[in-house]
Amino acid sequence: MKKFPISAPDEQIRPLLVSKINNLTKPKGSLGRLEELALQIGLIQQTLSPTLRHPQNIIFAADHGIVAEGVSVSPKEITWQQIYNFLQGGAGVNFLCRQHGFKLKIVDAGVDYDLPYERGIINRKVRRGTANFLHEAAMTEEEMERCLEYGAEVVKQCQEEGSNVLSFGEMGIGNTSASSMWMHCLTDIPLAECVGAGAGLDREGVNHKLHVLRQALDHYHSDGSPRDIIRYFGGLEMVMAVGAMLQAASLGMIILVDGFIMTNCMLAASKLCPEVLHYAIFCHCGDEAGHRLVLNALGAKPILHLSLRLGEGTGAICAYPIIDSAVRMINEMDSFANASITKYF
Amino acid sequence: MKKFPISAPDEQIRPLLVSKINNLTKPKGSLGRLEELALQIGLIQQTLSPTLRHPQNIIFAADHGIVAEGVSVSPKEITWQQIYNFLQGGAGVNFLCRQHGFKLKIVDAGVDYDLPYERGIINRKVRRGTANFLHEAAMTEEEMERCLEYGAEVVKQCQEEGSNVLSFGEMGIGNTSASSMWMHCLTDIPLAECVGAGAGLDREGVNHKLHVLRQALDHYHSDGSPRDIIRYFGGLEMVMAVGAMLQAASLGMIILVDGFIMTNCMLAASKLCPEVLHYAIFCHCGDEAGHRLVLNALGAKPILHLSLRLGEGTGAICAYPIIDSAVRMINEMDSFANASITKYF
Repeated sequence: MKKFPISAPDEQIRPLLVSKINNLTKPKGSLGRLEELALQIGLIQQTLSPTLRHPQNIIFAADHGIVAEGVSVSPKEITWQQIYNFLQGGAGVNFLCRQHGFKLKIVDAGVDYDLPYERGIINRKVRRGTANFLHEAAMTEEEMERCLEYGAEVVKQCQEEGSNVLSFGEMGIGNTSASSMWMHCLTDIPLAECVGAGAGLDREGVNHKLHVLRQALDHYHSDGSPRDIIRYFGGLEMVMAVGAMLQAASLGMIILVDGFIMTNCMLAASKLCPEVLHYAIFCHCGDEAGHRLVLNALGAKPILHLSLRLGEGTGAICAYPIIDSAVRMINEMDSFANASITKYF
Repeated sequence: MKKFPISAPDEQIRPLLVSKINNLTKPKGSLGRLEELALQIGLIQQTLSPTLRHPQNIIFAADHGIVAEGVSVSPKEITWQQIYNFLQGGAGVNFLCRQHGFKLKIVDAGVDYDLPYERGIINRKVRRGTANFLHEAAMTEEEMERCLEYGAEVVKQCQEEGSNVLSFGEMGIGNTSASSMWMHCLTDIPLAECVGAGAGLDREGVNHKLHVLRQALDHYHSDGSPRDIIRYFGGLEMVMAVGAMLQAASLGMIILVDGFIMTNCMLAASKLCPEVLHYAIFCHCGDEAGHRLVLNALGAKPILHLSLRLGEGTGAICAYPIIDSAVRMINEMDSFANASITKYF
């Protein structure tokens, strides 16, 4: 399996960062999460003057064999149709990218459709959608390795383009089902608590989805290792995101973690290499059943609670200005000494 | 008393707004709070294509007689020292204003110091700090009326400058004490639940503050009307913010509500004219004891929870990009029909 050499940030700089933050002209701790974020980013970048450079949002897209079982409210064709919408600039992720200066990369990890690569989509199609994990593994070992490798390659490209902060999103009808399976198998949280409404199933739909996933779990016999779990249940876009996250951490980049699916990708990445979590900023807790539970399992404290459930990286990008505020705080605020203010705390 | 003619937005446009939002290329409701904000702003502005123009943050500053009783961890001189820090651009509010394109106005509502008005501070000093409400009313009726009037004038000026969205902040050592009194008297929430650590009191300090405020409450004998309550406990900057909020609503402007103190100003404004709430966006719930309670009392659902407790408008400005996202969503996202996407919900 591909190795990602990730090390935890050197802690030596921590007291200097804490001291700088505490001496800014405000009561100690009074900028709350901004102070915590500034500390984390200072540790990641090993500097008292961190920067955010050329943020990019990478959407990995793929189809899922499990949709044949009626687990999603949306038809499978939405996967490719939404990609066209991304290209036209009219999707949710587009206005957010424009607002916050994110470059958008779209990666075909395994969409079951012939996409127009000449329009800038990155072609890393490993196969035309996963196999149906109710009956068989979503992908082979070799396909999983290619997904991890391709995800890592995209991130290396972003680094070469000057980026040091990335968010990841996904487009893939059916991927909340795959995510629920990862979550259950990687955390032991009961399956029913890992399954939610996805894009908008009603109660009956959720029950059916849970029934299908229970059956899939019954059929699954394997060594139960993280790598087998992610391979067996897919999806291609999710494994690619895992590879991307591991690569980003190994390059010391900041990883903005989006919603339910990307949180489960970070969970999987952390099972392969726990140090990845030092580089993760959890951006949003949505309403998908289980999202809060998987965040808790990761010890994560998400920045936003906006009831988003769109994916595409939208929750991560919405949180970007808050992260930017944290970086500006540590760079732009004056110290008590400089500002000639009585230090009152 | 000055009258502010505030009317609730005309509801006739609501179904059109809901329909436009529901037909954007996303599962219905999947942009959560952004959809709610877009609806509210569309109602306020009575348009399907709302805009945010020239945001400004107005800081009202004043001193409080009650600080003589040792209710604050910060010395009184911090009020004017922080104003100098605002002028130099090194305070918390400054980097946020720069980040999000807010113009910053600083209004001297009653600071007990001779400020350099030639540096752009707006001089509306009603008196040099309030009287100590442990022993007497913070201000006279005439002073209260002037505060309301001055607050309104500043907002009219902002409108003439082209603004349609304002946040309000405050600087005034001791103003969490005044806010706690307003909150208790205007909501009947027990005083102990309205009192918190302010800029950083320890447990003993909070107990002392509560003791002082209890005594003040025992001494207070009046008609218990909202206008008497806000007059008796002050502060000057808070009453000025109330006048500003009422004026902003009467002009159909969006009001961004900051932290504990500004939430209590909105509470007071709503007691004088309940329709003001239609124009209020509650931006942040901080850690000050009672902030959540007063938000609940107002039926408010704040956008952010970032553990900020700095005031100055910082929580409101931090939330601005989310509000901007909502406006961009309704203007820039494509509809299902336009994008040729199967409407899947």
